[in-house]
Amino acid sequence: MMKLMEDEVFRAFSTYAAVVVVKMMLMSPMTAFFRFTRGAFANEEDVARKSPEERKKLLRTDPDVERVRRCHLNDLENIVPFVVLGLLYSLSGPELSSALLHFRLFVGSRIFHTLSYVGSLPQPCRALGFMVGLLTNVSMAYRLLSSVMVL
Amino acid sequence: MMKLMEDEVFRAFSTYAAVVVVKMMLMSPMTAFFRFTRGAFANEEDVARKSPEERKKLLRTDPDVERVRRCHLNDLENIVPFVVLGLLYSLSGPELSSALLHFRLFVGSRIFHTLSYVGSLPQPCRALGFMVGLLTNVSMAYRLLSSVMVL
Amino acid sequence: MMKLMEDEVFRAFSTYAAVVVVKMMLMSPMTAFFRFTRGAFANEEDVARKSPEERKKLLRTDPDVERVRRCHLNDLENIVPFVVLGLLYSLSGPELSSALLHFRLFVGSRIFHTLSYVGSLPQPCRALGFMVGLLTNVSMAYRLLSSVMVL
Repeated sequence: MMKLMEDEVFRAFSTYAAVVVVKMMLMSPMTAFFRFTRGAFANEEDVARKSPEERKKLLRTDPDVERVRRCHLNDLENIVPFVVLGLLYSLSGPELSSALLHFRLFVGSRIFHTLSYVGSLPQPCRALGFMVGLLTNVSMAYRLLSSVMVL
Repeated sequence: MMKLMEDEVFRAFSTYAAVVVVKMMLMSPMTAFFRFTRGAFANEEDVARKSPEERKKLLRTDPDVERVRRCHLNDLENIVPFVVLGLLYSLSGPELSSALLHFRLFVGSRIFHTLSYVGSLPQPCRALGFMVGLLTNVSMAYRLLSSVMVL
Repeated sequence: MMKLMEDEVFRAFSTYAAVVVVKMMLMSPMTAFFRFTRGAFANEEDVARKSPEERKKLLRTDPDVERVRRCHLNDLENIVPFVVLGLLYSLSGPELSSALLHFRLFVGSRIFHTLSYVGSLPQPCRALGFMVGLLTNVSMAYRLLSSVMVL
């Protein structure tokens, strides 16, 4: 194993980054699941075996499919910053307890965000999940920039 | 702080990556701002407190909201490659001046791209911002591959 | 060059990550190509020089453009996890042969996925390209978490 991985903070980052990225990847099978159960496809070749009439019906958008897709895109928009800022923040020498707090808050908030989004929970559930994740990222960016800034 | 962060190029990369990622994250609050001021929402639960008639009106797409969302997606499509290629390029031992030139060009071009997109500046403003960013990424990829390629 | 880049696995990762990220970046010019040849634009300023009648015709969505955009988004959804998991997996000390197998399978599957998507190849071509990429990512996540997990 490489030197980097002997650092406790970096191992913690690796763990939480892997967990939240795997969570994000699961949105793809979930989209496929909703596409099949709701009968809503986006590509001609996905419905090629059906009769011409059925095809037209199946090439449509469905609110549940679109909901999962919006959730997936929101994941990308927030988990990419977490991974970038978290990696660099981990290398900037934070205390383990402080780093763990950031990582746990972020991953927890994104899991809560997904449950709120896909489950259509009443607001402000989804907004709260989103905000906690965003603020965690901002906090890591601030800590990182204040310790390593070179412009 | 870890060894990696003692390297001047890596610190410069960390700084510019954090700046451009924070810029990208700001697109989310900007989308929310346009959703509220334009009255255009995507989810039932976001308008749950309104009367049934108002709800229908508010669940719509708005050109200004869609513009910010396209800008955000374009950011993702270009900043993700920058972060990946920039990180690996930084580790491949470039000269500091050359690395700084790449990072500054990229971050500057993306800020200009956002201003052009959200401000609907006449073309070729947005195209120029986009192209400079893309070419910077291609240049880093070329430099990286020519120094470390293992297939 | 930095120490990290002396490691064979890390160099291999850098190479394959750069290749697949450059492939992803090429989707932007491809989208532009289809927008111009199909005459389908998304922004007022992109058609500002045309007559008012032509403008309305050109501000539309086109199935071929949307197809390339879906392919690009699917790339983002899968290549981001590959880059994150692949980077951390490379640092966790895998054997070179095993790492190369993962990287080659992933990059090959994504190139095949793009050809299947843009070329509208009959299913299960695209589904196969997608699945192989996803499973490669899951395998790297599993290997990573089983060797460095810190919760």
